[in-house]
Amino acid sequence: MDSDYGVPRELSDLQKKRTLYQPEIPPCLEGTTVRVEFGGGTTAADPAGAHVISQAFPHTYGQPLAHFLRTTSKVPNAQIITERPSIRVGVVFSGRQSPGGHNVIWGLYNALKVHNTNSVLLGFVGGTEGLFAQKILKITDEVLSSYKNQGGYDLLGRTVDQIRTIEQVNAAKAACEALKLDGLVIIGGVTSNTDAAQLAETFAESKCPTKVVGVPVTLNGDLRNQFVEANVGFDTICKVNSQLISNVCTDALSAEKYYYFIRLMGRKASHVALECALQSHPNMVIFGEEVTASKLTLFDITKQISNAVQARAEQEKYHGVVLIPEGLVESIPELYALLQEIHGLHGQGISAEKISTHLSPWASALFQFLPPFIRKQLLLHPESDDSAQLSQIETEKLLAHLVENEMKKRTKEGTYKGKKFNAICHFFGYQARGSLPSKFDCDYAYVLGHICYHILAAGLNGYMATVTNLKSPVNKWKCGAAPTTAMMTVKRWSRGPGISPIGKPAVHPASVDLKGKAYEYAF
Amino acid sequence: MDSDYGVPRELSDLQKKRTLYQPEIPPCLEGTTVRVEFGGGTTAADPAGAHVISQAFPHTYGQPLAHFLRTTSKVPNAQIITERPSIRVGVVFSGRQSPGGHNVIWGLYNALKVHNTNSVLLGFVGGTEGLFAQKILKITDEVLSSYKNQGGYDLLGRTVDQIRTIEQVNAAKAACEALKLDGLVIIGGVTSNTDAAQLAETFAESKCPTKVVGVPVTLNGDLRNQFVEANVGFDTICKVNSQLISNVCTDALSAEKYYYFIRLMGRKASHVALECALQSHPNMVIFGEEVTASKLTLFDITKQISNAVQARAEQEKYHGVVLIPEGLVESIPELYALLQEIHGLHGQGISAEKISTHLSPWASALFQFLPPFIRKQLLLHPESDDSAQLSQIETEKLLAHLVENEMKKRTKEGTYKGKKFNAICHFFGYQARGSLPSKFDCDYAYVLGHICYHILAAGLNGYMATVTNLKSPVNKWKCGAAPTTAMMTVKRWSRGPGISPIGKPAVHPASVDLKGKAYEYAF
Repeated sequence: MDSDYGVPRELSDLQKKRTLYQPEIPPCLEGTTVRVEFGGGTTAADPAGAHVISQAFPHTYGQPLAHFLRTTSKVPNAQIITERPSIRVGVVFSGRQSPGGHNVIWGLYNALKVHNTNSVLLGFVGGTEGLFAQKILKITDEVLSSYKNQGGYDLLGRTVDQIRTIEQVNAAKAACEALKLDGLVIIGGVTSNTDAAQLAETFAESKCPTKVVGVPVTLNGDLRNQFVEANVGFDTICKVNSQLISNVCTDALSAEKYYYFIRLMGRKASHVALECALQSHPNMVIFGEEVTASKLTLFDITKQISNAVQARAEQEKYHGVVLIPEGLVESIPELYALLQEIHGLHGQGISAEKISTHLSPWASALFQFLPPFIRKQLLLHPESDDSAQLSQIETEKLLAHLVENEMKKRTKEGTYKGKKFNAICHFFGYQARGSLPSKFDCDYAYVLGHICYHILAAGLNGYMATVTNLKSPVNKWKCGAAPTTAMMTVKRWSRGPGISPIGKPAVHPASVDLKGKAYEYAF
Repeated sequence: MDSDYGVPRELSDLQKKRTLYQPEIPPCLEGTTVRVEFGGGTTAADPAGAHVISQAFPHTYGQPLAHFLRTTSKVPNAQIITERPSIRVGVVFSGRQSPGGHNVIWGLYNALKVHNTNSVLLGFVGGTEGLFAQKILKITDEVLSSYKNQGGYDLLGRTVDQIRTIEQVNAAKAACEALKLDGLVIIGGVTSNTDAAQLAETFAESKCPTKVVGVPVTLNGDLRNQFVEANVGFDTICKVNSQLISNVCTDALSAEKYYYFIRLMGRKASHVALECALQSHPNMVIFGEEVTASKLTLFDITKQISNAVQARAEQEKYHGVVLIPEGLVESIPELYALLQEIHGLHGQGISAEKISTHLSPWASALFQFLPPFIRKQLLLHPESDDSAQLSQIETEKLLAHLVENEMKKRTKEGTYKGKKFNAICHFFGYQARGSLPSKFDCDYAYVLGHICYHILAAGLNGYMATVTNLKSPVNKWKCGAAPTTAMMTVKRWSRGPGISPIGKPAVHPASVDLKGKAYEYAF
């Protein structure tokens, strides 16, 4: 399974068949006479934050929406792009690999070459670290050939997934200048797109000619707002996970002796869990958003699951499937507060081994109450975006453990008279993340890649490629671009009298809408 | 996802399409004029055990092989079956659910009905417990309709998976007599088929008219011998797991920061791991059979993996995929010995909490050396066949933990200068076990179901349904039956001077052949 970047690799029969699929593009992107049309200037969705954002992004805030259209339609104010000079573009993977990511590069490459065969596409090898180190791979037909419609990010790889510190930003700028890039395309989720917007602003400010474009690629499905309907990878992940969850449901019904606790990827938001629940009909799903909204404690959730187990036992049912979003651990108030303390201590340079002795009395009490395996996981160093290492924290095991104890307690007290509760825990993460992309993700990614070219050809900076009307067939898709700053919000919180800190403007993950139809259907 | 036995259930679109597939059967089983031809009497493969087996199975040992053929071919000594009286047959799932199991019942049902519409098929609800309690579901077209070509065992369920104690055997006999069964079909792996053979002998001895037939259905793929080429479920499990392992390989290549340790189902033998390795090309596989043959200790295996990690680090590679068969824990000599002691103490009625204080000095030292999570798992009560609860023992985590410590040690000593070793552990068990069966498993199971009918119609007892020439297309498959006693072996071992106990005759799991071609190809 080893590969070296850029060397054509051996494919399985299935992978070979995959490479033969030519993704569809909507008519508006066909040919070489795509024109761009601009809407009015944009503002941030939250008016209260608009001022902060406009101050932080003086060069890139308030830019207009862009729409890419066929030249046949006649609209006033349309800027018809006819000149197609050759351009040099760099592309980098940033953030968790999502099925379909390779097709963004393929779409971008094809659009570049269709408009001018002299245009050059450079891939940064090894993610953002490769960008800083100027490690490049020239994208060619041959290089692409074995990555079309394939999963993973292994064409280029990924690493630290951030362009944030002054050193990192300077290194990125140096790379863009040294390589004479007209454009830099950053493929990633909410944090990578926030970084992309910041980079665009910095470049504009410092007169670096490279334009920065973001692409919404994240299996978490949480980069959603008034401009972005869906993210590349989400469709695949939900389909693959739902199939596996359905298998486990079948298994549970066959042996009738286990409760399966399945943790799903998806970061802070529970979109993956919601979509998988709609597709696979498990017995129970715990949504992080619901836990937050109702301020449910670990004890409340344990009681909820235990009550469901007890109710099922009364119907002679001793099996079931419970879905747990990986972000749940940060939604449970007391665990979140504990994690905040631990991360604060990490920030002070205190080693993981010694953190437990520095915790406040209440945090220490909670920490000691938790089983050892989870303590070790909570002590892990936070990720680059300051969140906990969610993929490493086995919340499903913690809940299964607490429910087991609760059922034992009820048995002892005589309030539960059913059979022993047996749980089996699973984490469905990496096996879905590396899977072959669905048709939707193949098409969507490829179209977004095309749009990136048109954004750069129009000389736009600080934009994200967007497609709307995604529920319709590809030929009805609408292609455009929106300034990333228009998707930003500013978080406020109060930590005491007189102190009301304001967060940095950022693209924040969208939560599951507890009043939305999808959530309603799930119950 | 809840269901009640026998009530038609709602299917997904995919499941609905699945029910439309009509499995193929070879020409020899077509129509109503199948004839049986007998070969010479069989003996056990191991002549040394033959005497013990013939003494233990006086009524069912030495029976001839049976072949089912088309009536068109003219062979002397062929007994042409023309009378087709209606018969009553019971069927029970015993052992781990394997994809395709439902099709055995479907094939059996269709063969019964084709030959006499008055024949009756009764399914035992809830596995062997349902057999003992005479909980039946009459199989009808309607009942079957939503289970054709579907995964799982949820049409009937399964439970304790054994018919062994005097009480169990008597209960099974009482059920067969009360329900006036002409035949009892037991669907399962090595232990269930050993039980089936014992039951056949007991029935013959006690003049119970019910004939007992076994079917080789086990995802472990370890019920192989001179008569049995393959087991229902194995093909599916290996395909589904290989796809998931390939996804993880893609993921490893993309982020390049993790070693994935993946534990695979398969019980004592490593067939699943071997087949998956051939299909998915991971970086490393640890075979239980190799560990046994080379008497590798936990320390040896840790060193082996660590050396591979170090060699890869020297090539700047910090990722990889390692496959671990679940049975490995019983192949490592010192862990096996520890498990034997623990199980012995369980047998003496000592509770899990107190076992650690009763261990011998060396076992206690090993036990204390192991991390707490694995200690808890090793203390679990053994399964009904006296083996450890392999699905619950996280050998992959133990190895990842030991390799991590070893790499830290080497770093400290200065012999390893690479980056930190990071492992992520997965157990690929239940998500594959519940999956939709492959075309091969759909066909194979359906054909075996047909053969069960012909075995019973021929009045045979203590046989297993067999198909040979499985590598050819279905129309070339050869159908037959072999006495299960001919597949038995007797294990001998010596525990000290003068003591040389002899095990009970049993169908034993076949190991991976370390001199075989498949193993050779994997390296």
